[in-house]
Amino acid sequence: MDNFINTLAKKINDYIACLKYNEKVNNLYQPIIYTLDNGGKRVRPLMMLLAYKLFKEDYMSIINNALALEVYHNFTLLHDDVMDKAKMRRGKPCVHVKWDENTAILSGDAMLIYAYMLMTKDFNENKLDNRHILPFNKALDTFNQATLGVCEGQQFDMDFENMTDVTEQQYMNMIRLKTSLLLSAAMKMGAQLAEADDDDAQRLFDFGEKIGLAFQIQDDILDVYADPNVFGKAVGGDIAENKKTYLLVKAFEVADKQLVEQLNYWTGLTHFEFQKKFEAVKNIYDMLNIRQIAENKVNELFNEAMNHLNDVNVSDDKKYYLRQFALKLMNRDN
Amino acid sequence: MDNFINTLAKKINDYIACLKYNEKVNNLYQPIIYTLDNGGKRVRPLMMLLAYKLFKEDYMSIINNALALEVYHNFTLLHDDVMDKAKMRRGKPCVHVKWDENTAILSGDAMLIYAYMLMTKDFNENKLDNRHILPFNKALDTFNQATLGVCEGQQFDMDFENMTDVTEQQYMNMIRLKTSLLLSAAMKMGAQLAEADDDDAQRLFDFGEKIGLAFQIQDDILDVYADPNVFGKAVGGDIAENKKTYLLVKAFEVADKQLVEQLNYWTGLTHFEFQKKFEAVKNIYDMLNIRQIAENKVNELFNEAMNHLNDVNVSDDKKYYLRQFALKLMNRDN
Repeated sequence: MDNFINTLAKKINDYIACLKYNEKVNNLYQPIIYTLDNGGKRVRPLMMLLAYKLFKEDYMSIINNALALEVYHNFTLLHDDVMDKAKMRRGKPCVHVKWDENTAILSGDAMLIYAYMLMTKDFNENKLDNRHILPFNKALDTFNQATLGVCEGQQFDMDFENMTDVTEQQYMNMIRLKTSLLLSAAMKMGAQLAEADDDDAQRLFDFGEKIGLAFQIQDDILDVYADPNVFGKAVGGDIAENKKTYLLVKAFEVADKQLVEQLNYWTGLTHFEFQKKFEAVKNIYDMLNIRQIAENKVNELFNEAMNHLNDVNVSDDKKYYLRQFALKLMNRDN
Repeated sequence: MDNFINTLAKKINDYIACLKYNEKVNNLYQPIIYTLDNGGKRVRPLMMLLAYKLFKEDYMSIINNALALEVYHNFTLLHDDVMDKAKMRRGKPCVHVKWDENTAILSGDAMLIYAYMLMTKDFNENKLDNRHILPFNKALDTFNQATLGVCEGQQFDMDFENMTDVTEQQYMNMIRLKTSLLLSAAMKMGAQLAEADDDDAQRLFDFGEKIGLAFQIQDDILDVYADPNVFGKAVGGDIAENKKTYLLVKAFEVADKQLVEQLNYWTGLTHFEFQKKFEAVKNIYDMLNIRQIAENKVNELFNEAMNHLNDVNVSDDKKYYLRQFALKLMNRDN
């Protein structure tokens, strides 16, 4: 069914494996190669190519732009892991653990520059004729807005660590920037490079944004309610770290005075037994029906995303792969 | 005499002070504003504008490209200070000291992206007509090569910390990337944006490269031989840290077995009295005539730079400001 998407993901991986680096500066580029070889789902380049394919068939002509977004995304993971003092990423030690922090900072910087080099590669090599300059121009602008916006989202996420009164609106704005923006930019860039009209490009941007928000809130839910055997990572990490999630923010919002005090108690502890804290906070969530509230929000966002996709002015059959992809992303494809 | 250059530097500062940031994300952008407001000499944008002015008079039309290079340069200082664990920069606490390391990493990332936004601003805002696309294209390529090359230079510099056998050739290659490349790129970009022919653009690149190398080696000399009251920063820092400089690399090269052993002794100490080590290493330099060797190298490079400038196919009077600037940069303007 989604054989095409899998084949495309494999193709993207092949391209990533073939990227060239200056071999004389191995210490700079080895961590980049290591970071990119991570078995990720290649969500962003896939979305860009699928968005392009709504309008035009020669989607591999924009592969360098798609790779730019993937390299940028992996750069953010590399630097975020330094800032979060994370130890592991997808079952492998983080770059700052395997090498050291200076290596992680500098290789990350080079990776960000490399993303821009990929984004401007076809333009710089004069592979774009006049007809393609304006689409590239628009896509580059979208790329610029997205790369800076993701940094703003990460800043808000860091700011939230020291705040106890994060509102739902603030939280949604943060994940819109930190998580959604690259997905919506991927969709919009694909449309722009395919010379779609601006309205359709915006609809696809909105589709990506809502899918991204739904995905992040579902991830927040899974951290508490997933079957650890299926989820693939340990459950309860967000609760242990008092990470602002949709669930925690919403719980503070709907709790009465007594439950707010309990939440304050558990999130205020500097020493605690993990299982005890996890059960207590989960118990408060359950009393407040937070799981249902969050799942309703996920469904609402997912449906909004699908409506945006429905509104795009191309024939319905062309939207098949993007629908499949969205279901797959949300683990709803079975 | 160089009143024009001072006025131009002031203009660049005014533009930097007027750069706009998203005020909703103050914590991200305040460190950037702080970093850019550093009383620096604005060497790179000045060089780009002066290179452009050799060929065309409307040099302020490329101000955004010039600012891009200045923002990029200051980004490298910000992240280098984190990696070097530096405390102060130009009399002010470094960003990672005044704020914290995570802020320095993330604001640096945003600054690098901001540099690319400035570099592509006029293009993205469709301010470039068809005639200007190719010059911009070439300049962007030069920018890309330079930004990545500087990271490679920083990597070599870090690699050298753990090496005892750095050759003169390796050292020159490192400072060519880390210090010179932005100066040579500034010159080349100015020429490219002014639609100079490729040969002249290359001559100006070579001028920038040799001036940059001369400047760095002179800086190495000043760390040992400068009058601290005039130099503006403490003397001997490089010797204290065993930093690979032209002087140290050259000393190891020309020293006999006995003096190599002495150099190994002093650079191998983990605990030492600063003044004692400084005097001892300086004494070895003096015995080997290192100061003269280094000054000869500076003169040689400076003369090469001037020859490249002489070869540029514009009338001699147009080169007046660049010659003045080069002399000023080397403190030879009095």
